[in-house]
Amino acid sequence: MEGSFVVTPWQVEGKIDYAALEKQFGIKDLDRGLIERIEKHTKVLHPFIRRRIVFAQRELGWLLDEYEKGNNFYLYTGIAPSGGMHIGHLLPFMLTKWFQEKFGAEVYIQIPDEEKFLFHSFKGDAKLPLEEYHNLAENAALNIAALGFDPKKTKIFIDTDYAKTLYKQAVRVASRITFSTVKDAFGMDNSANIGWIFYTSMQAVPAFLKSVEVGHNVPCLIPLGVDQDVHFRVARDVMGKLGYYKPAILHSKFLPGLQGDDKMSQSSDNKTGVIFLDDSEETVFKKVGMALTGQQATAELQKKYGGDPDRCMVCQYYKFLFEPDDIKLEKIFDAERNGTILAGEHKKDLATRINRFLKEHRDRVAETKKQIDRFMVTD
Amino acid sequence: MEGSFVVTPWQVEGKIDYAALEKQFGIKDLDRGLIERIEKHTKVLHPFIRRRIVFAQRELGWLLDEYEKGNNFYLYTGIAPSGGMHIGHLLPFMLTKWFQEKFGAEVYIQIPDEEKFLFHSFKGDAKLPLEEYHNLAENAALNIAALGFDPKKTKIFIDTDYAKTLYKQAVRVASRITFSTVKDAFGMDNSANIGWIFYTSMQAVPAFLKSVEVGHNVPCLIPLGVDQDVHFRVARDVMGKLGYYKPAILHSKFLPGLQGDDKMSQSSDNKTGVIFLDDSEETVFKKVGMALTGQQATAELQKKYGGDPDRCMVCQYYKFLFEPDDIKLEKIFDAERNGTILAGEHKKDLATRINRFLKEHRDRVAETKKQIDRFMVTD
Repeated sequence: MEGSFVVTPWQVEGKIDYAALEKQFGIKDLDRGLIERIEKHTKVLHPFIRRRIVFAQRELGWLLDEYEKGNNFYLYTGIAPSGGMHIGHLLPFMLTKWFQEKFGAEVYIQIPDEEKFLFHSFKGDAKLPLEEYHNLAENAALNIAALGFDPKKTKIFIDTDYAKTLYKQAVRVASRITFSTVKDAFGMDNSANIGWIFYTSMQAVPAFLKSVEVGHNVPCLIPLGVDQDVHFRVARDVMGKLGYYKPAILHSKFLPGLQGDDKMSQSSDNKTGVIFLDDSEETVFKKVGMALTGQQATAELQKKYGGDPDRCMVCQYYKFLFEPDDIKLEKIFDAERNGTILAGEHKKDLATRINRFLKEHRDRVAETKKQIDRFMVTD
Repeated sequence: MEGSFVVTPWQVEGKIDYAALEKQFGIKDLDRGLIERIEKHTKVLHPFIRRRIVFAQRELGWLLDEYEKGNNFYLYTGIAPSGGMHIGHLLPFMLTKWFQEKFGAEVYIQIPDEEKFLFHSFKGDAKLPLEEYHNLAENAALNIAALGFDPKKTKIFIDTDYAKTLYKQAVRVASRITFSTVKDAFGMDNSANIGWIFYTSMQAVPAFLKSVEVGHNVPCLIPLGVDQDVHFRVARDVMGKLGYYKPAILHSKFLPGLQGDDKMSQSSDNKTGVIFLDDSEETVFKKVGMALTGQQATAELQKKYGGDPDRCMVCQYYKFLFEPDDIKLEKIFDAERNGTILAGEHKKDLATRINRFLKEHRDRVAETKKQIDRFMVTD
């Protein structure tokens, strides 16, 4: 069907209409007024915010009200790995790290090793043993910590390691969510396994865990990929009933796949559109070389008519991650529009940038490895 | 309906036909042959076995085969408290302790604090906060340890405290159980909360946990009240698929209520039929005084015709718990049959025995309190 798309935590397909998604999920625009309120406190704005990559929110106004009353928030985000990390995975963490810096906020990062294990069991996929998901979770923790989080203000936890803390609270959440509710929210049927059914209550916990720990309510801000909103649609009301604040949420768009898929996803069959954090330089050149651009069919036509930056994945990758400077980004877009850059050069430049980013990231990972224990909590 | 009854982990009602239950659950008689095989190793038999209070089993023959090959088993049992402990709760633990002594077996005791919390939430009952169930669980742990378990060979754990160990394994079980299965097995519908749906996978874990810990398969024997069998009907196949032995099970009948209910249950409205471990001497005299006996309407008639020990709760209490000597028990039954004992004296004797038992038990509890940490595991 023309224009149809699906966005769930386990499936993102079709051409996503983010405006339609706001309506469907009942979330609100991150509008000019809210952006200005953020800017008042942060002086500068993160490119994700300036460029509307973070596009929607729940109750951000309330969160800023609380902040302005002196009631600082903490941040919660996470990732459920089903394979190696790719650069698209980093977006919510980069934004979270920026908020930590600007607001001096604590950060809770949940890495559920059981989530994809349970979901894959449901689908009947060839699945890894749980231990392998735990290894993936440890690898994710390292790559996330390496983004520069403050170890004094950041807790990273893997669900099965941290279950002593999480399960007790998850039980309280779960007691107030019926199968009917998760069935409708997640599109389950009676063949869903009982671990997957329960799982959403584990994901809810970090949104009020800080309040449990300190014994009074602390506002929570959750930056996430918009596909994760459903977990909090289900759990927000429950948190209210348990006497906690409902969390505020910031929703990001997905980094598109290099070949124009709307989400860079390792679960898609086509892995050439996905840049993994451990891809070699050569692999990056090869993958970017196959990227979809907005250019014309021939160099002649491109020089004459120019291309469309919105349809050019090279331009989009600069916009999402690889050119933080708005003026320089506009120059890149102009070159595409005016036909003054051809696909080959355009791609080579981007691949070089990506490789530089990956090298720097891997150097930080090597450094972070030595002190990863400062981030991880297990009790 | 005449003859109808219900036995689930959350509801026991009606006049229980234990033979019908065996068919319904697909469990087998604890027959003469098996009892003799136990006796060969233990020399004596526990009264619960001699008197067929333990009446059914799953795969006990296999367990004894393994034992005779030198492959000793461990024991697993548990209780999910929803209030104070009563004497009926002690039966599976007394039997478990006896097996520990006779076979030098390790014992795992699970006290799920979340189970009744989740079930009560489902029923919409006025429910306690989870912390209160945790307090009840601690109290249960103390009363169980006081039965004389060997602290060197006994682990007691409360689910939310031990979730770091339990949740990881429960996820593996849960991944292979669908909602359809628990729906049918436990009589749930879509209004069941997702914690209650998941819970059975937590109860399954201790049946193979020892095998996980030591890295090879160890046979497990589970003495339980027959109402708990359903959890293992659901999980036994899963354990097989995960590569572990399926546990052997011994099923006990319920200690009847003093007024003739088929299960001494604190959840029944009529608490006068239930002897709690903290009942005062006076309360015990009062409750036993109201017990149903098998006697005739008047002392005259009783002396003339005698009574029926099978319908006399006083006789049944001697049989279940308060007269281990078979010859003495037969004398008590004869006195009832022949009308040589009248209800008042009969009841006074039993109440005196119960009070002696409770006093001794409470003395052991006070002693055990000092060393309860030797039993509890939390990591």
